[in-house]
Amino acid sequence: MRTSSNSPNTESAGAAIERGDLRTFARLITRIESGDESVLPTLQELYRRGGKTPVVGVTGPPGSGKSTLTDQIVRKWRIAANRVGVLAIDPSSPFSGGAILGDRIRMSRHYSDPGVFIRSMSSRGSLGGLASAASDTLTVFDAMGFDQILIETVGIGQSETDIMNFAQTVIVIQPPGAGDVVQSIKAGLIEIGDIFVVNKSDMPGAEKTAAALQEAIAFRGSSSPWQIPVVKTQASTGEGVDELIQQIGKHHAHMTLHPEHRIQKQRRQALARLLDCINELMRTRLGNPDDPNGPFHSLIDAIVERRTDPHQSALTILEQIAELAPVSPGVC
Amino acid sequence: MRTSSNSPNTESAGAAIERGDLRTFARLITRIESGDESVLPTLQELYRRGGKTPVVGVTGPPGSGKSTLTDQIVRKWRIAANRVGVLAIDPSSPFSGGAILGDRIRMSRHYSDPGVFIRSMSSRGSLGGLASAASDTLTVFDAMGFDQILIETVGIGQSETDIMNFAQTVIVIQPPGAGDVVQSIKAGLIEIGDIFVVNKSDMPGAEKTAAALQEAIAFRGSSSPWQIPVVKTQASTGEGVDELIQQIGKHHAHMTLHPEHRIQKQRRQALARLLDCINELMRTRLGNPDDPNGPFHSLIDAIVERRTDPHQSALTILEQIAELAPVSPGVC
Repeated sequence: MRTSSNSPNTESAGAAIERGDLRTFARLITRIESGDESVLPTLQELYRRGGKTPVVGVTGPPGSGKSTLTDQIVRKWRIAANRVGVLAIDPSSPFSGGAILGDRIRMSRHYSDPGVFIRSMSSRGSLGGLASAASDTLTVFDAMGFDQILIETVGIGQSETDIMNFAQTVIVIQPPGAGDVVQSIKAGLIEIGDIFVVNKSDMPGAEKTAAALQEAIAFRGSSSPWQIPVVKTQASTGEGVDELIQQIGKHHAHMTLHPEHRIQKQRRQALARLLDCINELMRTRLGNPDDPNGPFHSLIDAIVERRTDPHQSALTILEQIAELAPVSPGVC
Repeated sequence: MRTSSNSPNTESAGAAIERGDLRTFARLITRIESGDESVLPTLQELYRRGGKTPVVGVTGPPGSGKSTLTDQIVRKWRIAANRVGVLAIDPSSPFSGGAILGDRIRMSRHYSDPGVFIRSMSSRGSLGGLASAASDTLTVFDAMGFDQILIETVGIGQSETDIMNFAQTVIVIQPPGAGDVVQSIKAGLIEIGDIFVVNKSDMPGAEKTAAALQEAIAFRGSSSPWQIPVVKTQASTGEGVDELIQQIGKHHAHMTLHPEHRIQKQRRQALARLLDCINELMRTRLGNPDDPNGPFHSLIDAIVERRTDPHQSALTILEQIAELAPVSPGVC
């Protein structure tokens, strides 16, 4: 686990990450995305020694100005923070698919800032599901000892909102426009936000959108003493970003002052990650249910044709899963 | 499995069900709801010999007139059908909790019709999750040899829409009012309907609601040649119910003519049921994650405190699950 030498030849990947080695960092994440299971011991080691830097999540529908706002947050952070890590997930972006271009293309302002580390990721590249790959990648980010970590996802699908599970503070961005609040309700974004932002607040309808958000938040209800704020920003000019940064700090302070809420959130994260891992393990051993060559496919056939029943099949799977050899690769 | 005698003393529960014995029917469902695992061999036997009667699902938000419309459908069916089975699931209903009153209270018209068999169910009564209990109950309904089976759920939560998974034809009811279409979008009802109904079509806004539904359906898209209809009804007067009955028949004919769609739907149902069963098995053996006395709880603690990691925990669970003794009851 710990090497006494710093020579790259004998040093473990984990140790290299912990002293902030960028090449190991990039390589490790590529291996996670490609489902290379040899990465597992390093991931486990890093996870057990990790948990240092709380993650801030930023999500919102396409067109909400999410990337520009992320850019502004990072700029403000950099005044005090030494190193900031950004994980940008956008399944629809043509850039996210290829790591070479995708790594640095999105946040123009920080393109040449050596204190900002940006990694893009696309769902197409990750075998075991986006949430699994993102969570493992965040473990690597955490081990790198960044002062701030931000994860950005486009808020349009279940897997994108699932990823927000791994953030301690979730920021939901909303462009002005009544239809977009409906989209956010549909995408389950209202339930997950700790801070809401109406971006492009100079546009007509911003006040209405803020009111609709307030209403949706009130409807959601909460047992937490945390007062969910709705912040108005103009990412293009930077207006309102200071208040947003303040609210992020406030929420962090709230989680520190209320360990019962922090632990509750962490338990939910751990449970989600654990269930993802179990599903991932099952997938590697049973194959995809839609893959005609996997054992899972024929099991479902047998249930449909009533040669067996769901109860018996579930029992058989659990009894045999430990002995089954993997049929497809995966980080588990 | 098969008894040669029809005497109640030696007859299996499965055989009693198959000759339509009502007392066995009611008792079996009560045992499913209470999580009595001794019911399992009978359920397995019935499942393997079942699959006779396709299930029609009816769902919609509270206030959509769902129960009245269900009542009308059953009335029309009864003109041709000998025996109709209805499973009514309403977690918010004070009647559903108690089987004694709940069994017959809801559909006043059929209160004394010996050809209509109504069973109410509430989520509070079922240990292993509503969807599991409903699916197993439908297996019993199917074995009873009903000519028509209908399952009714209030369309407000994930577990309620999940239940629609077990229907071959899903009817989504919509009351007039723009806000309610938003609710239906939010509840995921647009994705699951094979037939949509705007009920209370004499009320103002019905045309608008129908148009909003058409738009939402078009937005959803589909690869199936089935043309999703929007039917206008007034459950209170019976207007439009004939057309609805026709559309139900049409959809059934469509599924018969297109076995590839039927099998696709059945595979999705089988997969959902199988995953439910696996989760249920895990729950009975690991305990609820929120139960401080279950092994699951301490595992999550260990992950949060980083004494272990999610990957190792998942592997440990899968390796030990076959040997673990159940810590809580459940039909699995």
